[in-house]
Amino acid sequence: MRVHVAFTPAEAASSTVGIVVDVLRATSTIAQALATGYERVYCCGEIDDALALKERLGDAILGGERNAVRIDGFDAGASPREFLGEPRAKAVVFSTTNGTRAILETAARSDHVLLGSLLNLDAVASAARDLDDDVTIVCAGFQGTFAIDDAYCAGRIVQLLGAEPSDSAKAADAIARAWPDAHDGLLARTYGPPGLEEDIAFCAQVGVLDIVPRLRRMVDGAAEITTD
Amino acid sequence: MRVHVAFTPAEAASSTVGIVVDVLRATSTIAQALATGYERVYCCGEIDDALALKERLGDAILGGERNAVRIDGFDAGASPREFLGEPRAKAVVFSTTNGTRAILETAARSDHVLLGSLLNLDAVASAARDLDDDVTIVCAGFQGTFAIDDAYCAGRIVQLLGAEPSDSAKAADAIARAWPDAHDGLLARTYGPPGLEEDIAFCAQVGVLDIVPRLRRMVDGAAEITTD
Repeated sequence: MRVHVAFTPAEAASSTVGIVVDVLRATSTIAQALATGYERVYCCGEIDDALALKERLGDAILGGERNAVRIDGFDAGASPREFLGEPRAKAVVFSTTNGTRAILETAARSDHVLLGSLLNLDAVASAARDLDDDVTIVCAGFQGTFAIDDAYCAGRIVQLLGAEPSDSAKAADAIARAWPDAHDGLLARTYGPPGLEEDIAFCAQVGVLDIVPRLRRMVDGAAEITTD
Repeated sequence: MRVHVAFTPAEAASSTVGIVVDVLRATSTIAQALATGYERVYCCGEIDDALALKERLGDAILGGERNAVRIDGFDAGASPREFLGEPRAKAVVFSTTNGTRAILETAARSDHVLLGSLLNLDAVASAARDLDDDVTIVCAGFQGTFAIDDAYCAGRIVQLLGAEPSDSAKAADAIARAWPDAHDGLLARTYGPPGLEEDIAFCAQVGVLDIVPRLRRMVDGAAEITTD
């Protein structure tokens, strides 16, 4: 079993198991939504795709952001804290700047797609170990470039997998070791807009959700994510 | 002054100062060749370009590799140890799998292009500090993906610059700190063909060359590198 880390989606090669990581905030938020009781999350690349799918599904809310701001007319943004409490529908139709696109790209290249975050760190690593095949951890990054929060989380997953690491997997491990505290690791981030302090603190919780979001199937070009 | 690291050439954005790093072996070898007394090194992307330029220049030797093997008919491969002793000509016309291409791509995007390696670590960092402008360190990588030896050297440069780091610059710093000994850092590499042990040991020498290879001008599509 080997593990490789793609620090940006463009670097990702095909592999049997793909773990997509967008700690701030898409994969954290999807894990939280499924843990809260939403049955399915549909990841759409474009806003128009999301609107059309929500129309077709009926019992769903729209969630997502562009440049960290809630999309106009959507029911929720991309904060995991907006998906706490009683579910407002059976499903979430979701579209974000970097994360949902990384999920769609990984869906096209991998037999199994899991979503990783610090929130479900132990669960996702355990599920990947159970699949017992080569893993590529795909960091969503920020606008096509390296993001340290995703690399940090990738390193934490590498540490738990115990698989034979590629160069980038060794590097991610070193990055994770540089910040023993996860919150410090996420605060090392320099990119993106300010004002996400509470979400960063929320997403820095390690292993609090025993849940593994997985790609179940593609629906009208969207990735249907469940815990089945 | 800010510093950013592109772990692959594809990630590199435009910046005033570009430092290209291909520790194993292109930028190490070019530094050694100039230190030995070759006056200029011409970096060519393709073998045919190298052959044509050597024909036009006359007083030059051909050096380079594809997949770590000396190009058929060339006077030297890409080992820095082949460029020790008395210079065999005034110039070297050079073409390698990853490094010379990264140099050409950086030449198209930066006002100043310096070549960095462990051999000339202190000299290149000092020269970049003197330019006192935003720096992008461009790692050549391996076939478009992350290479830990280049990331390691990039991190050592970041540490010496003392500039405001991007996410990737902080990550490179963490990678460098993970291997206090440079030889260990280079030996962490997992990619590429075996059999480079002596070159790896040679290229792991830190700060032994007080030389800064720079892009002087483009000549017939080749990057002319000198120490002027």
